[in-house]
Amino acid sequence: MNQFMDKDFLLDTPTGVKLYHEFAQDCPIVDYHNHLNPRDIAEHRTFGNLTELWLEGDHYKWRAMRACGVEEEYITGNASAYEKFLSWAETIPKLIGNPLYHWTHLELQRYFNIATPLSSVTAPEIWDKSKKITTDADFDTVSLLKKQKVIALCTTDDPTSALHLHEIIAKDKSIPFRVLPSFRPDRFLSPSSKGWKVALAELGEHYDVQISDLSSLKEALSKALDHFEQYGCRISDHGFTQFGYCRGEADEAFTKAFTGRVLTKAENDDLVSELLRFLGEEYNRRHMIMQLHLGAIRNNSPRLWDRIGADAGADSIGELTDPFALSAFLSDLERDGVLPKTILFNLNPAENAMFSTMAANFAPQVQYGPAWWFNDHIRGIDKQIDELMETGQLFGSLGMLTDSRSFTSFVRHEYFRRILCAKLGHLVENGQYPDDIPFLGKMVRKICYENAAKALMEEQK
Amino acid sequence: MNQFMDKDFLLDTPTGVKLYHEFAQDCPIVDYHNHLNPRDIAEHRTFGNLTELWLEGDHYKWRAMRACGVEEEYITGNASAYEKFLSWAETIPKLIGNPLYHWTHLELQRYFNIATPLSSVTAPEIWDKSKKITTDADFDTVSLLKKQKVIALCTTDDPTSALHLHEIIAKDKSIPFRVLPSFRPDRFLSPSSKGWKVALAELGEHYDVQISDLSSLKEALSKALDHFEQYGCRISDHGFTQFGYCRGEADEAFTKAFTGRVLTKAENDDLVSELLRFLGEEYNRRHMIMQLHLGAIRNNSPRLWDRIGADAGADSIGELTDPFALSAFLSDLERDGVLPKTILFNLNPAENAMFSTMAANFAPQVQYGPAWWFNDHIRGIDKQIDELMETGQLFGSLGMLTDSRSFTSFVRHEYFRRILCAKLGHLVENGQYPDDIPFLGKMVRKICYENAAKALMEEQK
Amino acid sequence: MNQFMDKDFLLDTPTGVKLYHEFAQDCPIVDYHNHLNPRDIAEHRTFGNLTELWLEGDHYKWRAMRACGVEEEYITGNASAYEKFLSWAETIPKLIGNPLYHWTHLELQRYFNIATPLSSVTAPEIWDKSKKITTDADFDTVSLLKKQKVIALCTTDDPTSALHLHEIIAKDKSIPFRVLPSFRPDRFLSPSSKGWKVALAELGEHYDVQISDLSSLKEALSKALDHFEQYGCRISDHGFTQFGYCRGEADEAFTKAFTGRVLTKAENDDLVSELLRFLGEEYNRRHMIMQLHLGAIRNNSPRLWDRIGADAGADSIGELTDPFALSAFLSDLERDGVLPKTILFNLNPAENAMFSTMAANFAPQVQYGPAWWFNDHIRGIDKQIDELMETGQLFGSLGMLTDSRSFTSFVRHEYFRRILCAKLGHLVENGQYPDDIPFLGKMVRKICYENAAKALMEEQK
Repeated sequence: MNQFMDKDFLLDTPTGVKLYHEFAQDCPIVDYHNHLNPRDIAEHRTFGNLTELWLEGDHYKWRAMRACGVEEEYITGNASAYEKFLSWAETIPKLIGNPLYHWTHLELQRYFNIATPLSSVTAPEIWDKSKKITTDADFDTVSLLKKQKVIALCTTDDPTSALHLHEIIAKDKSIPFRVLPSFRPDRFLSPSSKGWKVALAELGEHYDVQISDLSSLKEALSKALDHFEQYGCRISDHGFTQFGYCRGEADEAFTKAFTGRVLTKAENDDLVSELLRFLGEEYNRRHMIMQLHLGAIRNNSPRLWDRIGADAGADSIGELTDPFALSAFLSDLERDGVLPKTILFNLNPAENAMFSTMAANFAPQVQYGPAWWFNDHIRGIDKQIDELMETGQLFGSLGMLTDSRSFTSFVRHEYFRRILCAKLGHLVENGQYPDDIPFLGKMVRKICYENAAKALMEEQK
Repeated sequence: MNQFMDKDFLLDTPTGVKLYHEFAQDCPIVDYHNHLNPRDIAEHRTFGNLTELWLEGDHYKWRAMRACGVEEEYITGNASAYEKFLSWAETIPKLIGNPLYHWTHLELQRYFNIATPLSSVTAPEIWDKSKKITTDADFDTVSLLKKQKVIALCTTDDPTSALHLHEIIAKDKSIPFRVLPSFRPDRFLSPSSKGWKVALAELGEHYDVQISDLSSLKEALSKALDHFEQYGCRISDHGFTQFGYCRGEADEAFTKAFTGRVLTKAENDDLVSELLRFLGEEYNRRHMIMQLHLGAIRNNSPRLWDRIGADAGADSIGELTDPFALSAFLSDLERDGVLPKTILFNLNPAENAMFSTMAANFAPQVQYGPAWWFNDHIRGIDKQIDELMETGQLFGSLGMLTDSRSFTSFVRHEYFRRILCAKLGHLVENGQYPDDIPFLGKMVRKICYENAAKALMEEQK
Repeated sequence: MNQFMDKDFLLDTPTGVKLYHEFAQDCPIVDYHNHLNPRDIAEHRTFGNLTELWLEGDHYKWRAMRACGVEEEYITGNASAYEKFLSWAETIPKLIGNPLYHWTHLELQRYFNIATPLSSVTAPEIWDKSKKITTDADFDTVSLLKKQKVIALCTTDDPTSALHLHEIIAKDKSIPFRVLPSFRPDRFLSPSSKGWKVALAELGEHYDVQISDLSSLKEALSKALDHFEQYGCRISDHGFTQFGYCRGEADEAFTKAFTGRVLTKAENDDLVSELLRFLGEEYNRRHMIMQLHLGAIRNNSPRLWDRIGADAGADSIGELTDPFALSAFLSDLERDGVLPKTILFNLNPAENAMFSTMAANFAPQVQYGPAWWFNDHIRGIDKQIDELMETGQLFGSLGMLTDSRSFTSFVRHEYFRRILCAKLGHLVENGQYPDDIPFLGKMVRKICYENAAKALMEEQK
C-alpha cells in the first residue's frame, strides 16, 4: 500500500517517479489562464486565515459543500470564518475521489507543511497551525507565487481595464515574475444580453470612440487591443455557451440590436461570428493567442443567483459544440491567412475526440487545450493526455493552467505533472515506448512549461 | 490468477476486501426502483424451474440470445422450458464481459449454491439441481427477497392501480419487508400518443373526475397521488425519450390534443412541461422523490413489435438530453420553492458528466442517479461512481437499484457493492485517500443502503 | 519493466500471452475494408524505399507530421524521398501513445526485421537497411500480403469501375488470396454536391442507362451491382457526414436536383433515404453486407484543400448521429423483410454505446463494427471491445480491418489481436471468466478471422 499523498503521489512506476522528480518537479510555472485579482498581487495581499485564503470566492468549494448538505449560512452566509472552515473540514473527507480533496491536501503540504488529512477532528489543530503561517511576513500573494516558481501568469481582464495594476506590478522590483493581462471581450460579443449596450458605451467612452455601428465597435476593440498589447498581453479568451458560427448581415444585426430590438438566433450568430472573425484576425496580426472555452451553462440555480449572483457555484456542462460551426470559423480565418494561434477547450468530456481532431485539422496553429474545469481531475486529465497522444500530439502541448482565483491553486500544475509522468512511466514500463529517459525528460519539461513559455514570452515578432 | 467469481470477486486490494466483507456484504437492501409484479409477492409465487424464473419476461436476456444467433422459437416461442434453458446455457459462455454473465453466476451461487459455470455442457446438471431447489417450500418470492435481506422495495405502478396487492402485502405478517408503490404517470403525459385519450378516460373514471381540460387532469392526478400516498408511495418515476421543456399555452395544447388534433412539437412540449411542473410541485408538497429517466428509444424493431409488443428487447440508447431544457425545468421548480428531491438518470453514458454537473447545480435537492440499464455493467458502474466523486458527490448517493422484473436480480446490489468497495480500495492503496477504514466503512454503509432507507422511509414529514 | 515491443507486446497476463501466441498469432487475415489500389496488386508493384511505401499517400502520417510542426515541403512537397523520411523519423518519437508509433515499429519488425526504434539518430541506418529489403524480389505487394497470411481482402471501388484489375488478379495464379471489390456509391447519393450530375452521367453511360429520373438511377445502380457481383463483391460501403433518414417525395427531389435547383435539407434527405433504402433491399437480395460509416467531416482545412485536395489529412470527427434516423432506416428495411447484414461504424467515440445498442436491436442482422479511424488506437480498440461485450456481443464480431491504403498496414490486425487477447486474459485472471482456454481460443479465432471469412466467403446463397 502506498502512503497517503507522499512524495511519490500518483507515481506508480520507477520510470514515472524518475521523470517527475528529475524533470517535472522543479520546472517553473507559466500559468497562461487564471482569474487572480491583479490588485491582490500589486498590493502584496496577505491572508488572515484559511477561510480567507480558501473559501472567500472559490465557488468550486462552495458547490461541494452544498452537495454535502452544508447550509448556505456556513458557506457564503454570516457564519464566522472559523465556522466556515469547520464546515469545509467536515466536507472534505466526503470528497473522496474529488480533485478538491487532493488540491486541499497538496496545498496544506506545500504551503503549510501540514501532512495531516483534514477532517472535523483535525480541523482545530490545522486551523491553529495554518493561522500562524498565514500571518507570516512571507505569506503574501507574491511570496506564494514565488514559492511555486511562477515565472509568468496571465490574469483575465476586461477590455475596459486601465491595466494600471499590471503596470504597478511590472514596476515592482520585488516581484520577480511577469503578470500579463488577458483580453476577455465576452460582454461585447453578447448582443442579446441585457448589458450589451451599456458595455458598448463603457468601451466607447474608455477608448474615445462613438460606438454606433459594427465598424466603430471594431475600432474600439482594436484600440483596446492596442492598449492591452502595450501591457504585454499575449493571449485572449472567449467563452461561449452556444457556439453558432454563421456569416450573414452582421451590420444589420448590429443596428437591430443597437436599436433595442430582439435578434433572432441567426442574426445574433451573424453579428457574433463577424466580431469573432474580426478579433481572430486582430489576434493573428498581433501574434496573440486566441482561447475558445466552449460549452458551459452558467448560473443555473435561481436560488443562488438571487442570493449570490454570478460565480455562485451553479454552473455546469452544457450542450455539445457544433463541429460544423467550429470548422467553418477556423476555416474562414485560415482561408484568409489570418488564423491566429488558437487553443480549444471543451467542457463536456464527451467532446474530447471531436475537439482534438478538429484542432489537428489546423495544426500546429490550432491546439487542443488542457482538461478544463469539470475535467481537471485525475481521470479527466488522464483522458485529455490520452486524447492528445492518440488523435492530436502531446509533444507540443502547452500543458496545464489553474483557471483559478486562488493563490494557492498552483499545486494544480504539480497534480498535472504527476499524472503526466505517471502516464509516460506506464507507456515505458508496459513496453509501449522505449526506455529513453533523456528524450522523455525533454518532453516533460516542454509540456510542463517550455512550450507555454515560448508561446507567451518569446514568440512576439 | 484469481479464482472464478469466488468470495473476493472484483475485489483486488486488501482494503477493498475488508470494506466489502466487513461493511457492505451484510447490508440490507432498499431497492427503490424495480418492476417486480406485486401479485407475485402477494401470492408468494413459486417457480417451477430456471426458465420460469429467468426467461419468462427478461427481455435483457432475450436480446442477448438473439445477438448470439438463437432463433426466436427458443427465446419467446413455443420451444419447451428445457429447450429454452439450453439455449440460454449455450448463449452464456459467449457473453464474456457482459453483466448478464456475472448476474447469472451470482444468482446460481447465491440462490442455488451452484458454483459451476453455466454452459451447454453443464446445463443438464444445473437444470436438475436447480429444479429441486426451485420447488422447495422456501423458494417463493417472499423467501427470495428475504434471502437477500430486502427491507423495502418500490414497485412501478400505474396511477389507476387500486394498489390492493400492496395492501394485501402490507397486511401479510409473513412478509417482513415493505413493498411500496411508485407513481409512474407516463401515459398521461403523452398527449401525442394514440392511447392518451383512453388513458385520461380511465384515470377520470378511476378517480371520479370528468377530465376535459388541463385543470381536471391535474385534479385527477392529484387524487391519484392522494391514493398512492395512502399506500406509502414515496417515489414517482418519469421516462422521456425526448425531454423538451418549454412553457407555453398548455391549456390550449390540451384542448387541441383532446379534440383529436395533432400537436406540434412545441405544443406537445408546452403541455407535457406544464404537467411535469405541476407534478414536481405535487411531489414536493408530499415529500415524494421524483425520478427522471431520460434518453431511451423503445421498440425499435418492427419485427419484434409485431411478434411480442413492448418490452421485447429492442430498446436502445437514444439522443442526448438538452441541458437547457433540464436546467429550465429544475430552475422553474426551484424558483417557486417547490423543487422536490429529484434523481436524474441518463441512458447514454456520454451524458454522465452533463447529468452529474447539472444535478450538482441543485444539490442536495437533485441527485445524479446510479448507472442505469445499459450502463449497469462493471465499467458503467465504475464510471458512474467516478463521475459522482469527480463532479458530484458520492457520500450522499442513494446507491444501486435493480430496475428489474426478476426476483433473483437482487444480486445486482452485491455487484454494485463489490465495484464500490474495489474502487475505494484502490484509492486508499494508491495513496489517494487515507487508510481510514472506520470512515470508509461508514460511507459504504450509507451508499449501500442507509441513504436510500432514509430517503424512502424516514424523511416523510 | 517489459521490453519495448517484444513478442509479448501489450500482453500483460500469462493467459493473454497464451491466447495470443497459441490462437491469434497465426490466424490468416480477412481484411474486409481497405483502400488498397488493385492496380498495385495486379502489377505486383514494388517499392523503392520507405518513403514510397509509407509517405506517398498516407494522410494519417502527414497529419501527424504537421501537428509536430514539419513544413509541408517535407510532407507533400518537393523535398527528396530521404528528406521526407528524415522528417518522419524526427516526428516519430514525438508520437508517444499514438497508433502510428506502434504501427511503424510493428512494420519495421515484421517486414524488415528491424527492432531499433526509429528516430533522427537511427534514421540513416534504418533507411539503408530497409532500402536493401524493399528492393528484394519478394518485396512486391503480393509478397507483402502473403507474408501477413492475407487470404481475402476487399478493396473500395467506384460503381463505374470495370473491375478488370480484379479480373487480372483473379486469373493470376501467383496470387494465392482473393481480392474482392466493394461497392461504394457515395457520389451517386450526393444530390446536393456539385459533381452529382456528372456522376450520374458516367454511371448511365457505363451501364447503358439513360438516367433522367429516380427509377432509371436505381436501374443503373442495380446493373452496377450485377456487375460487381460477377466479380465476387460481397460488401458495400456508405459514408455519411450527416445521416438524416426521412421518407418523402424522392421522385420530386430527384427531378428538382436533376434540373439544377438547390434541394432543401429535407428534400436532400428524402432522395438519399430512398436511394439508401433501395440499395439496402438490393444488398439483401444479393446477400451482400452493407457498411455504414457515419460522422466524419472531411476536408476541413482550406489551405490543404487548395494545395492537395481531398484525403490531405484534414478530416475530423463530426456531429453525433441521429439515433431516430438510424432506427427508422433499419426499421423500414426490417419491416419489409429486406434488412441486409449491416455493419455500423461511428467515428465519434461518444457514440459507441448508442451504436452498439442500436445494432443489437436488429441483431444478429445488424452488427456494431470495429474501432474506426480515429478510434483505432489501444484505448479506442479496448473501449470498442468493452462496448461489444457490455451492450452487444463480442463472440460473433467480424473483428478488425485496416481501412488503409498501405500494403504494410496489415500489422493492425496484429495490434487488434494483441489488445483482444490482453483483454480476455484480464477477465480470466481477474476471476471474471473461467480459465477455459479451449473455448476462449475458439472465440479468439472466430473474432480474428473466421467470422469475417464466413460472412464474406461462405454465406452467399
